[in-house]
Amino acid sequence: MGMVGGGRGAFIGGVHRMAANLDGKIELVAGCFSSDPEKSKLSGEDLFLDSSRVYSSYEEMVEKESQLPVGDRIDFVSIVTRNNTHFAIAKTFLEAGINVICDKPMTFNLEEAKRLKEVVKSSGKVFALTHNYTGYPMVKEAREMIRSGKLGRILKVVVEYPQGYAVGSVEKQEEGAINSWRTNPEIAGQSNCIADIGIHAENLLRYMTGLEIEALCSDVSAFIPGAQLDDDGSVLLRFKGGAKGVLFASQISSGDENNLNIRVWGTKGSIQWFQEHPNELIVKAADEPHQIYRRGNSYLTEVAQNNSRTPFGHQEAFIEAFANVYVNAAKAIADEVEGKLGGDYDFPNVDDGAHGMAFIDAVLRSSKSDQKWTEFSEI
Amino acid sequence: MGMVGGGRGAFIGGVHRMAANLDGKIELVAGCFSSDPEKSKLSGEDLFLDSSRVYSSYEEMVEKESQLPVGDRIDFVSIVTRNNTHFAIAKTFLEAGINVICDKPMTFNLEEAKRLKEVVKSSGKVFALTHNYTGYPMVKEAREMIRSGKLGRILKVVVEYPQGYAVGSVEKQEEGAINSWRTNPEIAGQSNCIADIGIHAENLLRYMTGLEIEALCSDVSAFIPGAQLDDDGSVLLRFKGGAKGVLFASQISSGDENNLNIRVWGTKGSIQWFQEHPNELIVKAADEPHQIYRRGNSYLTEVAQNNSRTPFGHQEAFIEAFANVYVNAAKAIADEVEGKLGGDYDFPNVDDGAHGMAFIDAVLRSSKSDQKWTEFSEI
Amino acid sequence: MGMVGGGRGAFIGGVHRMAANLDGKIELVAGCFSSDPEKSKLSGEDLFLDSSRVYSSYEEMVEKESQLPVGDRIDFVSIVTRNNTHFAIAKTFLEAGINVICDKPMTFNLEEAKRLKEVVKSSGKVFALTHNYTGYPMVKEAREMIRSGKLGRILKVVVEYPQGYAVGSVEKQEEGAINSWRTNPEIAGQSNCIADIGIHAENLLRYMTGLEIEALCSDVSAFIPGAQLDDDGSVLLRFKGGAKGVLFASQISSGDENNLNIRVWGTKGSIQWFQEHPNELIVKAADEPHQIYRRGNSYLTEVAQNNSRTPFGHQEAFIEAFANVYVNAAKAIADEVEGKLGGDYDFPNVDDGAHGMAFIDAVLRSSKSDQKWTEFSEI
Amino acid sequence: MGMVGGGRGAFIGGVHRMAANLDGKIELVAGCFSSDPEKSKLSGEDLFLDSSRVYSSYEEMVEKESQLPVGDRIDFVSIVTRNNTHFAIAKTFLEAGINVICDKPMTFNLEEAKRLKEVVKSSGKVFALTHNYTGYPMVKEAREMIRSGKLGRILKVVVEYPQGYAVGSVEKQEEGAINSWRTNPEIAGQSNCIADIGIHAENLLRYMTGLEIEALCSDVSAFIPGAQLDDDGSVLLRFKGGAKGVLFASQISSGDENNLNIRVWGTKGSIQWFQEHPNELIVKAADEPHQIYRRGNSYLTEVAQNNSRTPFGHQEAFIEAFANVYVNAAKAIADEVEGKLGGDYDFPNVDDGAHGMAFIDAVLRSSKSDQKWTEFSEI
Repeated sequence: MGMVGGGRGAFIGGVHRMAANLDGKIELVAGCFSSDPEKSKLSGEDLFLDSSRVYSSYEEMVEKESQLPVGDRIDFVSIVTRNNTHFAIAKTFLEAGINVICDKPMTFNLEEAKRLKEVVKSSGKVFALTHNYTGYPMVKEAREMIRSGKLGRILKVVVEYPQGYAVGSVEKQEEGAINSWRTNPEIAGQSNCIADIGIHAENLLRYMTGLEIEALCSDVSAFIPGAQLDDDGSVLLRFKGGAKGVLFASQISSGDENNLNIRVWGTKGSIQWFQEHPNELIVKAADEPHQIYRRGNSYLTEVAQNNSRTPFGHQEAFIEAFANVYVNAAKAIADEVEGKLGGDYDFPNVDDGAHGMAFIDAVLRSSKSDQKWTEFSEI
Repeated sequence: MGMVGGGRGAFIGGVHRMAANLDGKIELVAGCFSSDPEKSKLSGEDLFLDSSRVYSSYEEMVEKESQLPVGDRIDFVSIVTRNNTHFAIAKTFLEAGINVICDKPMTFNLEEAKRLKEVVKSSGKVFALTHNYTGYPMVKEAREMIRSGKLGRILKVVVEYPQGYAVGSVEKQEEGAINSWRTNPEIAGQSNCIADIGIHAENLLRYMTGLEIEALCSDVSAFIPGAQLDDDGSVLLRFKGGAKGVLFASQISSGDENNLNIRVWGTKGSIQWFQEHPNELIVKAADEPHQIYRRGNSYLTEVAQNNSRTPFGHQEAFIEAFANVYVNAAKAIADEVEGKLGGDYDFPNVDDGAHGMAFIDAVLRSSKSDQKWTEFSEI
Repeated sequence: MGMVGGGRGAFIGGVHRMAANLDGKIELVAGCFSSDPEKSKLSGEDLFLDSSRVYSSYEEMVEKESQLPVGDRIDFVSIVTRNNTHFAIAKTFLEAGINVICDKPMTFNLEEAKRLKEVVKSSGKVFALTHNYTGYPMVKEAREMIRSGKLGRILKVVVEYPQGYAVGSVEKQEEGAINSWRTNPEIAGQSNCIADIGIHAENLLRYMTGLEIEALCSDVSAFIPGAQLDDDGSVLLRFKGGAKGVLFASQISSGDENNLNIRVWGTKGSIQWFQEHPNELIVKAADEPHQIYRRGNSYLTEVAQNNSRTPFGHQEAFIEAFANVYVNAAKAIADEVEGKLGGDYDFPNVDDGAHGMAFIDAVLRSSKSDQKWTEFSEI
Repeated sequence: MGMVGGGRGAFIGGVHRMAANLDGKIELVAGCFSSDPEKSKLSGEDLFLDSSRVYSSYEEMVEKESQLPVGDRIDFVSIVTRNNTHFAIAKTFLEAGINVICDKPMTFNLEEAKRLKEVVKSSGKVFALTHNYTGYPMVKEAREMIRSGKLGRILKVVVEYPQGYAVGSVEKQEEGAINSWRTNPEIAGQSNCIADIGIHAENLLRYMTGLEIEALCSDVSAFIPGAQLDDDGSVLLRFKGGAKGVLFASQISSGDENNLNIRVWGTKGSIQWFQEHPNELIVKAADEPHQIYRRGNSYLTEVAQNNSRTPFGHQEAFIEAFANVYVNAAKAIADEVEGKLGGDYDFPNVDDGAHGMAFIDAVLRSSKSDQKWTEFSEI
């Protein structure tokens, strides 16, 4: 694989590399790690890459890699740059015939998302989006459980993502703690909190339950003094078919870390999955003892077992789940390289990414307007 | 004390009696336990009461007890009847000069709540409402912590109350499981779920944080086929001063039991209190280890210690917290009996009850209307 | 009921009174609350007792109460004095025909325990010992589960009771923190930690599993400088039939509170009950999701349901469990008063008490000797 | 790196490879994956290795790799074979000048352990043992905390490792579930349970606390019918300096998975680390709220931070901890390759391995003998 972005000091680029490395089946061989050629070069050295395949720009990378014979050239590129560059980079690689794995949010805005859908479609290549929380085996178990009808008809969903990364700024009355590109509307887009973590919550809900939002009503806030973008939001949800929901995400949750948590209640039972104890899935029903399904056990569905690496009791976590997105996307990429793309793959794709961009857009519109409920439709 | 309601088979009447008994300082000596005189009589026998003080109607009870000399007659009455009778009974006792402890919701509707405020005021008697969750020592600790500024300025509150009591009905497509007076609008009032448990959540939030709701936006549902009243509701909250909140309550939460849970995030830290582990208060702040404050320890505030009965490590729970409401109301009642009522008492009063009725009213109005935000004002 | 001991400032006397009060069926009417007549009198006033039934000595109390007609006089006495007085007081009341509920440990030493067994037997009266942890509904559920064979043949048991009450003394190099009668061998007997909490652990193990100790091997310590009695002990256990066990109890467990915890593993499954979350019973088996049985649910056994007071989700705890010992003993006492004592009662009795004294004795002997294993036999 | 063992279907070999791969700094380039040459070859193909470096025997591997120039040949070998082969393989590689990372237990018996110590010493090469639980950042935090004196003088340690892998066999009255080489004394050595998991517990205790065992007293059992080796053991421990301890390990703990848990109580505070929630370290002290230290926070010690890969809230687990052992051993190996071996490395070495073998030996001797306490001394 190749990588665009993720140079020295970047968090998510390192995670992508560990996820790709884990199983020993994907090798990083090329990259453009920074828009600064020198920094790109140094990062390439850190990663023991052949300097001839460390590039100064992604355009150069596309050009040179495309000239290599299939088998030698990269099978896919990981894009781990800032939001406002995803679209252009992805488009360039796809149009050059190179598959793409891209970090979220997929694009800078909804318009780009629509265009990217078309680019992917016309390219015939694989496009995967790293909504990594769908990679957890127990999330997949929950999904299978809901699909099988074990919970009955779904009535209510609550998904939450309180995070404490930005809270220092509120207290200090300054922008410091998150004075990063994420709070800059010219780089991040129209949203910070909803775009960074709110869409993880929404994507998890959608992946796990299959529910489709019909309308939503939101209240988005910027608590950090001087902030140009949101750092908190709460959303009431109405789904097609009558289920209801609550979603909230917040970056000013002092003392919280990364508390993504989802609960789904159906007519026959309910489940809870909590990102901090990811090897467990709590399953409840009226008049029955609560149950805790645990990763690695033989009673789990095949999909949960196939996304595990170690026996029960040995915890698997963030990097392993991220690696599952890579593994599952890599199956499609391998098929594509061999010319036999097709079938039912289990990774977030361009439709999921476009859906997420539409969600961001709708949440922001609802909060700004005085309309109680904003209709939601796929793009 | 005396009691109206709470005859054989009634849940909450038994809880009130255990709460009153616990500390050996309150004695049940009179009652009208049912609108059915025979059932009232039998209940009185179960409770070892002198049959001359077991009455056929609350009107008879007021009349006879009032004729007894102070010291012999009851110092207060506990009202544990259905919602639609609270007002008339409370009014009658108060006007006869007898203090009242009343179960929630305070009245049948908002109009009665307004009138009861006036009755209490003009009577000069004590009126206490058993919002029992405020009786927990660690809830009081949380309140003191927030008052002291330890959490900084409060930014966000999430309070939830998912309960599974009614879920059988959803699945069975019948009214069975909660086919009780609580779902009958002529007895319960305009709401079931919000009036029964939603106001507990709201009262807890108000007691703990002191925040005042400025406006709210709600989505209330009735999932049980044929239901006349709500069994689920979610509410976005805006507080005076800029804090935001989410409240949800649900009786169709399959497998949940009584999961009242509150989280409060401030600029300097956050707390969580969970009714199922009531002896703990989780306290978090950025860049510090999470802390768990535990009942019975010497580092707690005086108010938390004064509302405890046993050393640390010996769990206290529902009945003890309920008893704390009785103990704290009994202090005011004792003062009233001795003619020295005054000072700062720590129990839910008629203002809290009226506030709760206004909350129910606003949530229902918001959900029914198309207005995004319903202004909220005290009555 | 009457009470001996439990004057102002005494912890366990207050717990006994709350436990007795809770259900409104037992009334405290007489007592000798202190060996100091003045203190006894003041305590009686605190408790609103008729001063004619507040006595200066337990001997006076036995004499005067015995002269009252049955129905007027106390049906039983609660003994909540120091260890070295239990035997004489219990013997005196029993021989006067008055039933006894006594705090643990039952007697000062093993010899007294043997004699008390004979006294109880010859008196024909009820003797109950407040091993309160057996009063928890979920402990009873666990017992029924094991009895029913659901766990298969029991292989291993680990019961532990780390407590932090004495730890201040270790650090401070002084006797302060537990400089109480419990560390005085002339009052407490030959053991502090094992006698105070180790026997709770052992009694819980015995009640829940029915296993009988065949031999044990212990290591008892006194970490507090200058301590005359133990403050820590660990014991390897061998049970009749081949099961093995570990028991440890400690009062120097800094930061722990009252962490009684028991785990039982059988060939078909295992359970865990933890005193700090007493409404739960964790049930596990190979190749099955973990289960959490919870108090108040209809799937529990009758005995668990009969020892509950509130619906599921409303936590019950220490005082309620203590009250269950009183309720269950009171059934036998009521039968005795009516002359129909007999049948299968569920409370710790004189045999359990004697067993506990034999356990203390064996643990201390094993630790002092160089024998690896000390044979254990009932008395 | 090269690998001996770990062919298709082997659990621990795969874990070693993932651990080595994770950070992209170690590359598997050679191996002898099975004693069956055909199976070794196929495993090499699975791993995309150059077939010329997939060997039929470890002797061939040593010979051929040694002939390659430094830089081309493997810097170290991972030995993931059965216990009875560790010594011979390690000795051969070390004597050929190749560094070794070896799975535990280090050798087949104590005698081999003594000899291996000498081999390592005379070779001047790096020998690392994968006691992987010491790789967890929060275990390292605990170690630093104890070293710094924050807990005061250590009084008591309880470490436990209940596992359910073998329990099926107990019930089924057959050897099936663990009818593996681990229960065969000719392959595993004199112990199954103590050698497989008991030494993990002991190593964790030793690493974290620095305590040295003075004497121990054990009770080892074989509950599985027909078992030749132990599947359960409990040990009382006495440490130099006066601290006491309990260690138990069990493979018949029905429904448990891999519940390694350690608690350490000192005069000033206590800690708990639980393998199933490895990102947390519970810290308690008398008269203070409990604290939960969490991985990834800036308040942690440098060593804990240096052994982390992701920000707080993103869980790290088994593979990452295993990878830390590799990373830390690889630092020493890199130094060795560059001829500058020396300094303070943080990985389990041959002394730890020999210590573990001595522990196994002492536990088995104590249990078999009638001596109450078996003196323990380092080898």
